[in-house]
Amino acid sequence: MSPYVAHVTVMLKPLVNDPAGLAVRDGLSALGFDGVEAVRVGKRLVVTLSAPDAEEAARLVNAMCDQLLANPVIEDFVVEIVDGASDTTAAAPPS
Amino acid sequence: MSPYVAHVTVMLKPLVNDPAGLAVRDGLSALGFDGVEAVRVGKRLVVTLSAPDAEEAARLVNAMCDQLLANPVIEDFVVEIVDGASDTTAAAPPS
Repeated sequence: MSPYVAHVTVMLKPLVNDPAGLAVRDGLSALGFDGVEAVRVGKRLVVTLSAPDAEEAARLVNAMCDQLLANPVIEDFVVEIVDGASDTTAAAPPS
Repeated sequence: MSPYVAHVTVMLKPLVNDPAGLAVRDGLSALGFDGVEAVRVGKRLVVTLSAPDAEEAARLVNAMCDQLLANPVIEDFVVEIVDGASDTTAAAPPS
């Protein structure tokens, strides 16, 4: 079993209303950022887990998304497996 | 002025407590996912804006993060500018 880090991005589907995004857009306008056309707000999860290999890690994290991390009715999710477990808290996406 | 899409990732700094992440980790354990060691929960924002060029777009979005989108005291953020405004709602990170 090796440690893996999964970066999970969960966003509302394009046709689903995003009131948080509208509030952020209006807040940015109020602050004087005039060029902002749209904002969508989603979640980013960094999951550190043990798995026999990267494929199994990806399978597990996809199952986690289906069961808990995302609502497949209204949200899309993307899972990226990052080898090694050095950056469990990183904001940065893998390069 | 061209349209740009910025992908913003906001995560709590590594030493900051993340109760949401702990709750998700415990929830995954309750569902039978035994190999999960840690979960950190952050935000992903997709900002569509007009700017004269990509550098100015990046400068604007970094200013937005400092002023509204992130709390620099407890959060780190990463801004990526994606050319073109075709995927304002995409969950996928840029390849």
